[in-house]
Amino acid sequence: MTDGSPVPAPRPSTETVEEPRSSRGLFVTLEGGDGVGKTTQAALLQEWLTDAGRTVVRTREPGGTEVGLLIRDIVLHHRGEVAPRAEALLYAADRAHHIATVVRPALARGEVVIQDRYIDSSVAYQGAGRVLGRDEVRELSLWATEGLLPDLTVLLDLDPSVARARLDADDKPFDRLEAEKESFHARVRAEFLTLAAAEPDRFLVLDAAIPAAELAAVVRDRIATLLG
Amino acid sequence: MTDGSPVPAPRPSTETVEEPRSSRGLFVTLEGGDGVGKTTQAALLQEWLTDAGRTVVRTREPGGTEVGLLIRDIVLHHRGEVAPRAEALLYAADRAHHIATVVRPALARGEVVIQDRYIDSSVAYQGAGRVLGRDEVRELSLWATEGLLPDLTVLLDLDPSVARARLDADDKPFDRLEAEKESFHARVRAEFLTLAAAEPDRFLVLDAAIPAAELAAVVRDRIATLLG
Repeated sequence: MTDGSPVPAPRPSTETVEEPRSSRGLFVTLEGGDGVGKTTQAALLQEWLTDAGRTVVRTREPGGTEVGLLIRDIVLHHRGEVAPRAEALLYAADRAHHIATVVRPALARGEVVIQDRYIDSSVAYQGAGRVLGRDEVRELSLWATEGLLPDLTVLLDLDPSVARARLDADDKPFDRLEAEKESFHARVRAEFLTLAAAEPDRFLVLDAAIPAAELAAVVRDRIATLLG
Repeated sequence: MTDGSPVPAPRPSTETVEEPRSSRGLFVTLEGGDGVGKTTQAALLQEWLTDAGRTVVRTREPGGTEVGLLIRDIVLHHRGEVAPRAEALLYAADRAHHIATVVRPALARGEVVIQDRYIDSSVAYQGAGRVLGRDEVRELSLWATEGLLPDLTVLLDLDPSVARARLDADDKPFDRLEAEKESFHARVRAEFLTLAAAEPDRFLVLDAAIPAAELAAVVRDRIATLLG
């Protein structure tokens, strides 16, 4: 939006034989630990795009579909232990169903998909935080989605202790992952930053400590560029 | 049991660096379409082994654990469509949890595990019957289980129309897979036979049309040989 226009133009429709990213719409993911402000940024971006006349699908993983909600319930709220590989496969199953039935159809209609968490969360949480390797988890996700990567991934980076303080201000009880100890969240944060460094074109890394309105403006600028 | 003894001796405990099969106990799987008599054979084998003083764990996939029952409910009874890769990943998740929390611990204790359906069902149903390749489904299962293969797989082979007639005699309503059309079951049967031909040492293929007591005797002979 360097020309000041509030209306992002649709991207040109490109048909290629091998097109790992969305071919018509725009696929944007928000990543980072709990409490960094992903929901706020998703809401602000959605509002701006909707005002600009774009059709927006806001979604999340895990739990972006009816099947996904059932899976989410198993992963987050089952009282007993879930074996590490089983957990990784459940996340991948949720993802496979969500991408096939929600995200790809929306992108094919030329819509903008704003998604809370995707492949990078799997790698950061499952790959770095648990006992599985990041390459294995990434391969699993790519198999599940037939290789769909986002056009843009906004990483909201924040010191875990600050994020934790934000969460403590809420009334909601912690789920299993939120209750993990602090060193785990530090490893996850480092893993997110490593992923971002490896794919600088796809990632937009932002300091989540700065005010939400300022962050939103930076995200809008990048989206406007992507939308042409 | 060539000497007529009803007591199978325990297998010698072998410790090797790479041991894809059960290292101390015995892992037996039963395969074949619905209605071929897997449950009957499992019960007869369990009875014989228990009488002989062995500790037996009888289990099944999907649904052999609390987590697995939740997964089974999604796969078999969800009213909407489950994306093909999501279905394969859900089966793999059930398997990962089941093998890690039930089967491997039992085998480590030197017990006999008799399991209704395993990796070969996944390949036959998901690989051949659906849109996914058999190699992909097999790789997924092997990743999920860290490469655990059965010591013996009993394939109960039967014409699908005969199996169907047996099922029609029951009162139970058909689940989603049972309700698939006949050509699907013919493909699954052919796939099972192909798998058995590729691994003749692991498979014992039996004509499920012959009486259950006769089949059980053949199974017992093979198990006795494996137990030494």
